[in-house]
Amino acid sequence: MTPLLVTPGDPRGIGPEVTAAALATFRERPVVVVGDEAAVRRWGLPDRIRVVDPGDDDEPVEVAALRYAVEACLSGRGAAVVTGPIHKARLAARGFPHAGHTGFLAALSGVSDPVMAFVGGRVRVSLVTVHIPLQAVSAALTIAAVAHTIRTTAAALRSQLGLPTPRLVVCGLNPHAGDAGLLGSEDADVVAPAVAIAQGEGLAARGPVSAETAFADALAGRADAVVAMYHDQGLAPLKALQAALGGPDRSVNWTLGLPILRCGVDHGTADDIAGRGVADPSSMRAALAFAARLSAASAPAPTTPGSAR
Amino acid sequence: MTPLLVTPGDPRGIGPEVTAAALATFRERPVVVVGDEAAVRRWGLPDRIRVVDPGDDDEPVEVAALRYAVEACLSGRGAAVVTGPIHKARLAARGFPHAGHTGFLAALSGVSDPVMAFVGGRVRVSLVTVHIPLQAVSAALTIAAVAHTIRTTAAALRSQLGLPTPRLVVCGLNPHAGDAGLLGSEDADVVAPAVAIAQGEGLAARGPVSAETAFADALAGRADAVVAMYHDQGLAPLKALQAALGGPDRSVNWTLGLPILRCGVDHGTADDIAGRGVADPSSMRAALAFAARLSAASAPAPTTPGSAR
Repeated sequence: MTPLLVTPGDPRGIGPEVTAAALATFRERPVVVVGDEAAVRRWGLPDRIRVVDPGDDDEPVEVAALRYAVEACLSGRGAAVVTGPIHKARLAARGFPHAGHTGFLAALSGVSDPVMAFVGGRVRVSLVTVHIPLQAVSAALTIAAVAHTIRTTAAALRSQLGLPTPRLVVCGLNPHAGDAGLLGSEDADVVAPAVAIAQGEGLAARGPVSAETAFADALAGRADAVVAMYHDQGLAPLKALQAALGGPDRSVNWTLGLPILRCGVDHGTADDIAGRGVADPSSMRAALAFAARLSAASAPAPTTPGSAR
Repeated sequence: MTPLLVTPGDPRGIGPEVTAAALATFRERPVVVVGDEAAVRRWGLPDRIRVVDPGDDDEPVEVAALRYAVEACLSGRGAAVVTGPIHKARLAARGFPHAGHTGFLAALSGVSDPVMAFVGGRVRVSLVTVHIPLQAVSAALTIAAVAHTIRTTAAALRSQLGLPTPRLVVCGLNPHAGDAGLLGSEDADVVAPAVAIAQGEGLAARGPVSAETAFADALAGRADAVVAMYHDQGLAPLKALQAALGGPDRSVNWTLGLPILRCGVDHGTADDIAGRGVADPSSMRAALAFAARLSAASAPAPTTPGSAR
């Protein structure tokens, strides 16, 4: 069985300790940790787990680790990449040109338009726009971008989770999905045409639906994923649900549209508590479990790299 | 004990049946139903409940009912107004100049700037902006509007729910509350100054906080209410939680800043199922229970009508 490749992330953050804590009880699939060996071993990694030092002194170890892990997955030596937290500002100061994992992993695997998604318990949500000001969302919302997100989400649910006909509920941008045009035009002009395109391609997508009801659909099993138009529309409900439902629903960051499988923790490096052994490893636990599920369910033929837009 | 004044809403919608169903088991406080008597009686209202026909043939019965109920509460003959659903488009077609209950109730009670809020289980959320396109939110977000919402929310939690020092968590507008200015300027330029003003007035408000974490704070009991900047930021998490946690957390519409107590159902007239006796009365049940709680907890001295902005 090919191993999961786990990158603990920034050695100065909580990544190494949550990685070690989560791996202590993880036996669903072989694991290779890629990163700073001493930083992880100090937290008592089980003997069954191999650690690879990505060994490129010219770049930060967490960056070299991602490069190594992606190459291993692309070449079939790894099943999935599972990422701990990196520190974006620290990497930017060292010349790292990407805003986070998603863009770097996409560049490494030759994809120009990955989709950021999150999984928490029964709820899966993908985002059309991510880290932009709210005021910029409307302009960024194009028919092509919404259709691409729907398509990529459906493809990932099919190929990575094994759902033959994924049902997607697509949120409207405006309150009440625009209330028949009374509350903004984007739902009729952008979201609805994108949903129609997806339906024309045979995808089981419906919308625009009010974000107020989309998550209830997902929770009730009436939808396999929610497509949200912007960051807080997707993540505020997801994190609220996680807080309400507790540990097993701890959310995981999942990148769609890559030719490899990738998920990771949903939190940052938490430098203020790093090294004290008090960090909560539940997101890394959830990420490992989800990566094992993806690895078992994913279709044998990898997705072709490149844009499908 | 002064009664709750219950307005079933549009007689053609599900209001009468959910009102009758919810009142069948409600005994916490006397109730007077104000509206179309035949429409409600046909669903088997208990004998203990009086029905008043507001009797103004010049306007729709649901409008006359609201007028009657507000006047009764203003004059001390009613404890609170509990509203069933009205049909906004139908009322607009008959010349009703308000977008919904909130504006009409405010006008009836001499208030220019009420605040729309919702309560679902342990989570209370008030909204700075409500039924406007997402693209219009940034421009509508002024320091005065955010401060007014914080102030009005704190005042209502104090006077209507009896919380001596309400703790409010105020959401940022942008992802990660602006991420230190990288994702939009409104959090630093508008939300933060408004929170500072509220703190200067002695209110226990903090923020801007990422909407991703604000609801977890409310769920964990670290905040008594969330102040959200726009419709979906507040309601998508609230409704998701309600779907996850079930009936007792069914959400209720609550109007803050009025000189009277008012809450109501969180749903519409559902004309498609009206009259079949299949409508879910749980939001009306929750509204009645919440109105009884407000009536018992509210400070004896009514709030002074007019703007506090």
